[in-house]
Amino acid sequence: MINHLVIIGVGSIGASLGLALRREGFVQKVTGVGRGVENLKIAQQRGAIDEYNTDAEAAVANADMVFLAVPMGTMRAAMLSIKDSLPANAIVTDGGSTKGSVIKDFAEVFGSTTQFVPGHPIAGTEKSGAAAAIHDLYNGKRVLLTPDAATNAEALNVVREMWQAAGANVEEMSAEHHDTVLAATSHLPHMLAFGLVDSLAKMDDVDEIFKYAAGGFRDFTRIASSDPTMWRDICVNNREALMASMDRYLDDMKEIYAAVDAGDADKLQEIFSTAKATRDKFCS
Amino acid sequence: MINHLVIIGVGSIGASLGLALRREGFVQKVTGVGRGVENLKIAQQRGAIDEYNTDAEAAVANADMVFLAVPMGTMRAAMLSIKDSLPANAIVTDGGSTKGSVIKDFAEVFGSTTQFVPGHPIAGTEKSGAAAAIHDLYNGKRVLLTPDAATNAEALNVVREMWQAAGANVEEMSAEHHDTVLAATSHLPHMLAFGLVDSLAKMDDVDEIFKYAAGGFRDFTRIASSDPTMWRDICVNNREALMASMDRYLDDMKEIYAAVDAGDADKLQEIFSTAKATRDKFCS
Repeated sequence: MINHLVIIGVGSIGASLGLALRREGFVQKVTGVGRGVENLKIAQQRGAIDEYNTDAEAAVANADMVFLAVPMGTMRAAMLSIKDSLPANAIVTDGGSTKGSVIKDFAEVFGSTTQFVPGHPIAGTEKSGAAAAIHDLYNGKRVLLTPDAATNAEALNVVREMWQAAGANVEEMSAEHHDTVLAATSHLPHMLAFGLVDSLAKMDDVDEIFKYAAGGFRDFTRIASSDPTMWRDICVNNREALMASMDRYLDDMKEIYAAVDAGDADKLQEIFSTAKATRDKFCS
Repeated sequence: MINHLVIIGVGSIGASLGLALRREGFVQKVTGVGRGVENLKIAQQRGAIDEYNTDAEAAVANADMVFLAVPMGTMRAAMLSIKDSLPANAIVTDGGSTKGSVIKDFAEVFGSTTQFVPGHPIAGTEKSGAAAAIHDLYNGKRVLLTPDAATNAEALNVVREMWQAAGANVEEMSAEHHDTVLAATSHLPHMLAFGLVDSLAKMDDVDEIFKYAAGGFRDFTRIASSDPTMWRDICVNNREALMASMDRYLDDMKEIYAAVDAGDADKLQEIFSTAKATRDKFCS
C-alpha cells in the first residue's frame, strides 16, 4: 500500500501503472506530472491519476513513491527536477529500458542510490500517450528490478509489491546482467532490423524491392518501425553492452557468410537446424 | 484451359494449385506425382488431384503441363526423372524460390529452355503436405514469372493464365532481377534471423537470455523457425545474389556500428528515422 504515488511522465507506461494501482486500491493518491496539460487531463479522465501537476519539484514534495516513466533521454533531467524537494524517505523507481546508465545518473544526481529501486517492465504498447494506457498492460508480464548494493531492502520490497499489485511477475538481477541480456534479445535485433531497412532504402529500386516483400519480411522488420528517439537513447545509454552484443553477432555471422560463400550445404544445414531447434524450444 | 496437368511434388504448394484449378474448371485432369502414397491419397481425397502416380516418367508421358513443385534441392532430379518421356510440346513450369539456378538446370538437362516457364508464387503455408493445401492460397498473391529469351511465348501465356485462374497477380521479370530482389527481402533476412538465434544459442546463459525475450524478438526471429533444408538449398542455389546482398548489408551496418561506438546520437536518430519512415511507407 502506497499513500502518495507521483508518476513523472504520464505516457502509456506511466498511466497504465496508475490505472492498475488505483483499480487495485494499492494507492491512496496518484499525482501525474508532465508538460502537456491535455495529456494529463486525459490521464485524469481515464482514472489513471487523481490529480496532475506540471511542476515536478512541487509535486514530489509529499511523495512516498516516485515512478520515473519518462523516455531514457530525459531520465537525468527528471531526476534533476525533483532533486531539491524529494523527501529523504521517498522511494524512487523507474521504467527505463537500460539500467546501468540510470543507476549512474541517480548516484551522480542524488549522491547515493539508497532510495532508488531501478526497474524495467517488459511490456509496452505501440501507441503512446495516456490515451493508450490499459489497466492490464502489466498483467502476467515480467518486471525486472536491478537493485545495487546500496538499495534499501524495504524500498525494494515496496516496489516489488507495487508491481505485483499490477499483476506483474517481478524478478531481480544485477543491472549489468540486465543490460547484457536486453542488448542480446532486444537492442541487437533492433539494430539489425533498422540496418536492414536502412540498407534496402538506399537501393536504386527501393519501391520494387519492397513490392515483393512477403509476410516474413514484415514480421522481421516490424521493430524497425519503433520510435527512433527512444532507440537513439537506448543505444547511447547501453553502448557498452550493445557493442559487445554486435561484436559477438558479427563474429558469429562470419560462419554463415563463409558457408554461403563456399556453398557448404552441410554447414548451412547444421547452423539453420540449430537455430530452428533453439527458436522452437524457447518461442513455441 | 489445360487438358492434362501433372504436378510433381504434391505438398502444400502443388496441391493448393491443383485444388484451385480443379475448382475453377481450368484443368481436365490433374495427376499428382510423389513418393509418399499416403500423401498422394490425401491429395486425391481432398480434390487436389484426379489421380496419382509414383512414377514421374510414366506420369508425364501425356502431359500438356508439368508443374515442378518439389523442394529446390530435388529440382534437378525431378527434371532428370521426366527427361526421357516429356512430350516435345508440353510446357514445364516450377515454383522454386530461386530462378537462375532452375533455368540453368533445365537448360543443362533438356538442352533448351523453349518449353520452360520459370515461376515463383510468393505464397506459402507454414505447414507442409497435401493436408495443408488450401484452395485460395494464391488468391490475390503475386506470382513472378522469369522467362528467358528462348521461352516460347505461347507457353508463357498459358502459364500466366493458369496462375490467374488460381487468383494470382502475375508479373514478369528477368531471373537475375528476381534473384537479386528476393535475396534482399527474403534470403538476407533469413540469414540474419538464423544468425541471431544461432549466436544467442552459443551463449552460456541461453535459457535466461530467451526467458526475457519479448514480442519484438519473437516477430524478428519467426523466420528462423523455417525449414533448414529448404534454406540450405536456397543459399546454395542463389549464392551469388545472396553474397552480394550480405556484402551490401554488412557494409551498411558499419555505419550503425560506428555511430553506436561513438555515441553519435544525431547519426543514430537519422538512420533510425529513415528506416522507420521507409518501413512505414512500404509495409503499412
